[in-house]
Amino acid sequence: MVAMIRTQRKLALSRVYGLLEPGPVVLLTTAHKGRANVMAMSWHTMMEFEPPLVGCVVSGRNFSFDLLRASKACVIAIPSSALAKKVVGCGNTSGRSVDKFAAFGLTPVPASQVNAPLVAECFANLECRIADSRLVGRYNFFILEVVAAWNDPSKKNRRTIHHRGRGEFMVAGRTLKLPSKMK
Amino acid sequence: MVAMIRTQRKLALSRVYGLLEPGPVVLLTTAHKGRANVMAMSWHTMMEFEPPLVGCVVSGRNFSFDLLRASKACVIAIPSSALAKKVVGCGNTSGRSVDKFAAFGLTPVPASQVNAPLVAECFANLECRIADSRLVGRYNFFILEVVAAWNDPSKKNRRTIHHRGRGEFMVAGRTLKLPSKMK
Repeated sequence: MVAMIRTQRKLALSRVYGLLEPGPVVLLTTAHKGRANVMAMSWHTMMEFEPPLVGCVVSGRNFSFDLLRASKACVIAIPSSALAKKVVGCGNTSGRSVDKFAAFGLTPVPASQVNAPLVAECFANLECRIADSRLVGRYNFFILEVVAAWNDPSKKNRRTIHHRGRGEFMVAGRTLKLPSKMK
Repeated sequence: MVAMIRTQRKLALSRVYGLLEPGPVVLLTTAHKGRANVMAMSWHTMMEFEPPLVGCVVSGRNFSFDLLRASKACVIAIPSSALAKKVVGCGNTSGRSVDKFAAFGLTPVPASQVNAPLVAECFANLECRIADSRLVGRYNFFILEVVAAWNDPSKKNRRTIHHRGRGEFMVAGRTLKLPSKMK
């Protein structure tokens, strides 16, 4: 926790969309009644700029689904390519039988507004609360509001990983600047 | 159209998620009563593997919103980095006043099941119908079913572009293979 406090900086909520819009694989943490979990997720989209709304699918087969529904909150943590093996490990394992934080060397850190932990190794962490669950029954689709955002400028590798399926991941490449009016 | 028929190949619907899950900026085409349009979009997520469901936000301020609601269908076309300037041009312009296909040199091609056109210059095209519009009123969020998918193996550049906001785009980088159980 000390390491976290020293290196994580608060990020303006208006900057959140730039982190999620490129489609990175993220880690989603949850906690309820003393059980915490972390899963890999890439079915997510921005839905509003500010306050930031994020829509995401969490399968009803996942242990995280139960914790998310019960606690009504989670953290979206954004890992760099340096964490790719840990991320895939989280995706290949169920939190029902394994403490994935311990198994994959991920450090849970208390968040400011939700019970779910931040992940110390990730370069950004977004504390979220469920804003709308009306599509959960039909599609396992949760609409989350980001209530606090953290950025760790000490982590220089910010190359995200992007899931192509069947064991293939794309690592974020070069940056292109174009005179876009898109926000 | 002839060029399209010669180079586009039908893609199994089970492969669609691998195209959209990494979070590329896509083009969304619509057509209704003789008017067609194309917009840039990156607020989208997979919601189901097969038949593929895609959730996306189309702002009510966009001309495409009206055409999508009226026609209940669209095409999601996936451009490579070679088309980045055209894509940003589409994002900076409104179809209310400009024929964007003509303005940016994009070639509309008849689709097989929907009125909206495919985009000949894109390496993949997904014909979609609205499957659920219950979140349109509140969030401009459409759930689309992909009813036909096309892939153009003659287009060798398949490096997608990913929006980071404020004029910055990430170009898809190298591929990482990891023994993932994630589909």
